[in-house]
Amino acid sequence: MAHLKLGMVGGGQGAFIGGVHRMAARLDGCFDLVAGAFSSDPARAHAFAAELGIADYRSYSDYNEMAKAEAARSDGIDAVSIVTPNHLHGPIAEAFLAHDISVICDKPMTATLAQAESLVEAAKSSKGHFFLTHNYTGYPLIRQARQMVADGALGDIRIVEANYLQDWLSEAPAEDNKQAKWRMDPAQSGGGAIGDIGTHAHNLACFVTGLHVTSLSATLSSNVAGRLVDDDARITLQFEGGARGHVWASQVAIGNENNLTLAVYGTKGSLRWVQENPNVLWFAELGTAPQMITRASGAASPAATAVTRIPAGHPEGYLEAFATLYREAADAITNQNLSGATLGAQEGLDGVRFVDACQRSSRDKATWIDLP
Amino acid sequence: MAHLKLGMVGGGQGAFIGGVHRMAARLDGCFDLVAGAFSSDPARAHAFAAELGIADYRSYSDYNEMAKAEAARSDGIDAVSIVTPNHLHGPIAEAFLAHDISVICDKPMTATLAQAESLVEAAKSSKGHFFLTHNYTGYPLIRQARQMVADGALGDIRIVEANYLQDWLSEAPAEDNKQAKWRMDPAQSGGGAIGDIGTHAHNLACFVTGLHVTSLSATLSSNVAGRLVDDDARITLQFEGGARGHVWASQVAIGNENNLTLAVYGTKGSLRWVQENPNVLWFAELGTAPQMITRASGAASPAATAVTRIPAGHPEGYLEAFATLYREAADAITNQNLSGATLGAQEGLDGVRFVDACQRSSRDKATWIDLP
Amino acid sequence: MAHLKLGMVGGGQGAFIGGVHRMAARLDGCFDLVAGAFSSDPARAHAFAAELGIADYRSYSDYNEMAKAEAARSDGIDAVSIVTPNHLHGPIAEAFLAHDISVICDKPMTATLAQAESLVEAAKSSKGHFFLTHNYTGYPLIRQARQMVADGALGDIRIVEANYLQDWLSEAPAEDNKQAKWRMDPAQSGGGAIGDIGTHAHNLACFVTGLHVTSLSATLSSNVAGRLVDDDARITLQFEGGARGHVWASQVAIGNENNLTLAVYGTKGSLRWVQENPNVLWFAELGTAPQMITRASGAASPAATAVTRIPAGHPEGYLEAFATLYREAADAITNQNLSGATLGAQEGLDGVRFVDACQRSSRDKATWIDLP
Amino acid sequence: MAHLKLGMVGGGQGAFIGGVHRMAARLDGCFDLVAGAFSSDPARAHAFAAELGIADYRSYSDYNEMAKAEAARSDGIDAVSIVTPNHLHGPIAEAFLAHDISVICDKPMTATLAQAESLVEAAKSSKGHFFLTHNYTGYPLIRQARQMVADGALGDIRIVEANYLQDWLSEAPAEDNKQAKWRMDPAQSGGGAIGDIGTHAHNLACFVTGLHVTSLSATLSSNVAGRLVDDDARITLQFEGGARGHVWASQVAIGNENNLTLAVYGTKGSLRWVQENPNVLWFAELGTAPQMITRASGAASPAATAVTRIPAGHPEGYLEAFATLYREAADAITNQNLSGATLGAQEGLDGVRFVDACQRSSRDKATWIDLP
Repeated sequence: MAHLKLGMVGGGQGAFIGGVHRMAARLDGCFDLVAGAFSSDPARAHAFAAELGIADYRSYSDYNEMAKAEAARSDGIDAVSIVTPNHLHGPIAEAFLAHDISVICDKPMTATLAQAESLVEAAKSSKGHFFLTHNYTGYPLIRQARQMVADGALGDIRIVEANYLQDWLSEAPAEDNKQAKWRMDPAQSGGGAIGDIGTHAHNLACFVTGLHVTSLSATLSSNVAGRLVDDDARITLQFEGGARGHVWASQVAIGNENNLTLAVYGTKGSLRWVQENPNVLWFAELGTAPQMITRASGAASPAATAVTRIPAGHPEGYLEAFATLYREAADAITNQNLSGATLGAQEGLDGVRFVDACQRSSRDKATWIDLP
Repeated sequence: MAHLKLGMVGGGQGAFIGGVHRMAARLDGCFDLVAGAFSSDPARAHAFAAELGIADYRSYSDYNEMAKAEAARSDGIDAVSIVTPNHLHGPIAEAFLAHDISVICDKPMTATLAQAESLVEAAKSSKGHFFLTHNYTGYPLIRQARQMVADGALGDIRIVEANYLQDWLSEAPAEDNKQAKWRMDPAQSGGGAIGDIGTHAHNLACFVTGLHVTSLSATLSSNVAGRLVDDDARITLQFEGGARGHVWASQVAIGNENNLTLAVYGTKGSLRWVQENPNVLWFAELGTAPQMITRASGAASPAATAVTRIPAGHPEGYLEAFATLYREAADAITNQNLSGATLGAQEGLDGVRFVDACQRSSRDKATWIDLP
Repeated sequence: MAHLKLGMVGGGQGAFIGGVHRMAARLDGCFDLVAGAFSSDPARAHAFAAELGIADYRSYSDYNEMAKAEAARSDGIDAVSIVTPNHLHGPIAEAFLAHDISVICDKPMTATLAQAESLVEAAKSSKGHFFLTHNYTGYPLIRQARQMVADGALGDIRIVEANYLQDWLSEAPAEDNKQAKWRMDPAQSGGGAIGDIGTHAHNLACFVTGLHVTSLSATLSSNVAGRLVDDDARITLQFEGGARGHVWASQVAIGNENNLTLAVYGTKGSLRWVQENPNVLWFAELGTAPQMITRASGAASPAATAVTRIPAGHPEGYLEAFATLYREAADAITNQNLSGATLGAQEGLDGVRFVDACQRSSRDKATWIDLP
Repeated sequence: MAHLKLGMVGGGQGAFIGGVHRMAARLDGCFDLVAGAFSSDPARAHAFAAELGIADYRSYSDYNEMAKAEAARSDGIDAVSIVTPNHLHGPIAEAFLAHDISVICDKPMTATLAQAESLVEAAKSSKGHFFLTHNYTGYPLIRQARQMVADGALGDIRIVEANYLQDWLSEAPAEDNKQAKWRMDPAQSGGGAIGDIGTHAHNLACFVTGLHVTSLSATLSSNVAGRLVDDDARITLQFEGGARGHVWASQVAIGNENNLTLAVYGTKGSLRWVQENPNVLWFAELGTAPQMITRASGAASPAATAVTRIPAGHPEGYLEAFATLYREAADAITNQNLSGATLGAQEGLDGVRFVDACQRSSRDKATWIDLP
């Protein structure tokens, strides 16, 4: 098992996703968190670093300084996790890549298309690797779904449906809701539901089917007075090879917590999966009884088993799927071997292009936009 | 309880929906089936009529003749059920309405917009009533959903999602599949999935929310070689008052039998319902635990109770919902009082306009089409 | 299709099960209700008969008189439905059987073991047939389950679990609750939950597995102050051949409406079924993905298809299952051929013996009682 | 947050529960695993320790030696995890407690009642603490259920139902199945399903209700030829205060993976929970719509929130619940304060007494056995 040294930028007090990355990094024992820039305020940064057991001299308040200092240490970090608001992902990632330090970056990759294109180049010219945490790809049964599609179990793909419904922004959030605040600011987020969760749905659809979106028609809307970003996005997709698809991402769909669902329909069969109960994958073949495939069961495929930790019926959840991405990043860094399962800068660029195209389509009455 | 005399046109040997109408008419004892034109072949018509216990002299092979003869009898039928292929609905309905005989007609109301407009006029000038069997409106919890929306339990409606997924046309049907044969012929059906099931989804969305569609953008597709009608339809809707909606109707979504679902999201709460388990209605208010409202329970509303036959936990199904439309038609005919729950020619016209607009939009790259 | 003449005893105004029997008798058009003794009060009996469209001269207030009069008519009833409180089932059934009129009797067959034994003899010596409406046996997927067990799909049966949970008697019922009133009176009901619903669970377990209970240990309890009958019953069963079983019947299990479930575990596989969603049967074979078998689907067996009315995904419910028993009774009477699916006096006796044994066991600290 | 040093005895190559304990110890960063006795074979012990990054000189092959050596080190372990077969739990725990090292022990606490009683005394006289990992008590919604019962949300408890169904021992296990091997040996396990999973069900029922079992009647059986321990156990329980209960534990119920369920019925309401989908708790109050309470939602109680890591809809699973017990043990050790949530030697003794009483009852035809 890998034992790597990890740094983190962002994710201080009160943040949600920073804590998730730390638990994910810890679960399999692949990473030790030894350095961090948890705040641009030095006192707050130090206080939080101390809480995490990080030495004072490896707590930074400036990510450029951190990249330089860690690169100079003989025991410097092997990788950095970036868990800041979206508009900082690009500059921070480039700072560490410039010092050949690998980057594990939250999604969407950047807030703008220009940042994304720049980062792709930066990743190419670095000895460090770039990993993007579309964490839902880490679920064992999502891996199985991908393998089943690739193996032809569904026949030719006709329809892909990926919906991601939440309700936490159904009303104007409280003033002190840090999670909401930067997301509601287009300059920091680059977009609303479309970037925050729409990219997950888009990524999952492409990850499982192996198909690329060739054109799309989108309607983004905002449902709360004064809101500057979209909170509901509906996109019709055309995939290479003729399959059609649909993404619905909403943060105002009351009664949905984090209801990401994927359905893939082919000429021979279908697969359906629901993130909130992720240990089950439904497989239906035309004319036969639908099968309930469960994680770690006799019906689990090698692709699922490879990322499974505990037996069937012992539910694995969100953190385990996230930890799988960390374990795979650790393996890739250790072995200098980027496995097929790993998402990188290209997938990040695809996601930002998706957001950009949706925004352009929506501004023009859902006109069809081609994607490269 | 009403005791009315019923005739039927169509629905002979091997038909599906004819038998459904007969059971629905029988369940509550409101109608006696006493006449029928079950086939244009006299021998087949008579044989089937005899099987149903219908007197020979009230078995017809021509619907015009039947309308005339029954109108002339002192014990003539009070109503006729029309369960033929779509393109015949209009002419047959008009024939009976012309003799002031009430009509209970399967959906879609007609195969063309011209037929629909003509039928609306015919219904207006007849002393008979016209009833359209969008049978899913007969489910108790759909009635409750409608009442809850009307009562403001959801606040202002933001999003309406009605999906209707089947898989029975995933491949080319067998030559002798009567159900499929006329549906696959545009001249008889007027359209594919959009007319057969899309109209149900559209009707249900409007019935429950009380909202009217003002414009739509549709993509119809056909997924089986040689098929002349659509088998998959995806429509984005704009409702009066600003709500947005979505209908997905598919007959090639493997693993779905008759999976009609409705979700309505408002500013305060949401409702979700699944036809295949129709005795449950999910109600979520923002910030509280979702509630599972069940038919005939303490949480059932008067609107639901009014159309409920048996206690909670004793599942009612498709036939009971269908029978409710028959009972309401019987009451309306008997009392000369068309209750609010009854669907008539106007709703039929709305449905045919919906189909027509979807077909025009789809032919023009999903351009937005306004509805009157 | 049969067209038989039906009478009814009991089931007047405000009764639940009488209306169920009438709808069940009507659904498939096999029976016309032409006579009845709906009340011992002549005026009430007549008023209710009139409401049902029954001729005044065939409305009775005394079942003995009715049996005699109907037997004497050339157009007398072919069968009578008995839907009174339990203690009257036996005497009424015997009265009609004595005139060779077939009997369709609600469960439990009688209130006492002596009545049951007497009725078995009466049934043997009559030209009429005796049918017992353990209606859950009419569900298509229960028929399929039985066939699968008989075909060996589960291997040797190890464990049978039949639970029947309700909550409507969690508190003392209202004074005017007719359903509750006679059930709470041991003289009329013969027992509480054990007779009312425990017999259904016992019958279903035996019906599906084809196994006979050889001994049992029961604990009956009463959970509401002043209640004279049991409202919760827990029984451990031993079946012939070594299988073990368990029945839990409760009317005080809050949150359960009519939650009858059956699970059968064998050496090779298992079946699970839930009455409140009866169109699904779960089948699991060791080491493979569980299959969701649905009514009328490609995975439905001939035994299920034979009692199915409408296509997959169009839910059939409680009334349809009940109607199947009526249709089968009609066929049996018409053809003088009692099919294997039909429950008669022997099954009724088994049920009353089960109740009697449970009551004896419970009075003696759950001691094991052998059954004949 | 605590940063404690942890040792482990057992849990070497190929073991299941050892890995679970290590992930659970790691997730929240409370423990560093620094010492271990992973095998009685020194070479194997060292090899596995090295894989885990444990220094060679802190890898032991004898637990007595380990206890002594670690107690003597200035940086010795604060706690030891015991993940061996059951019959070794007692001796190992006593060895560490004798050196005032805290013990985190898998369940059941011991293989025999004598061992359990001895261990209770050892725990009392040690400065170390004893923690028992009935891990299902760590689920947030189990904590909520317990709080709701304590707060009277259900009224007086009438019925408690805890079932734990698996199928992995439906046939004789493979020769090389380490998990199965020692469990099938009564000398090592002390019992079959009753100890392995029955104790979990018993513990959960008591943990949530706060009630103590006063007497029980049990039937244990063995369903596979040659098997020396029970694989199916059915127990009727009597609780203090009059509530009745039932435990069914089976390892031959095909189609069940790790299907632990709990239902608690009171005079006012009920709670139902299913381990395989642990982020949902059903709450029903008499006469109102059942509520679906989800982890981390607005309906989650403080008791649930206290042990919740991530937002609603992001499923937490088995490892997170397990990690909660580790975090609570770390807090208890650090603060010398045993919180109410922590299970210790007394609960361990209760569990072993439960097993012992079940075995005695079963040997005597399910006779009722009183518990102290």
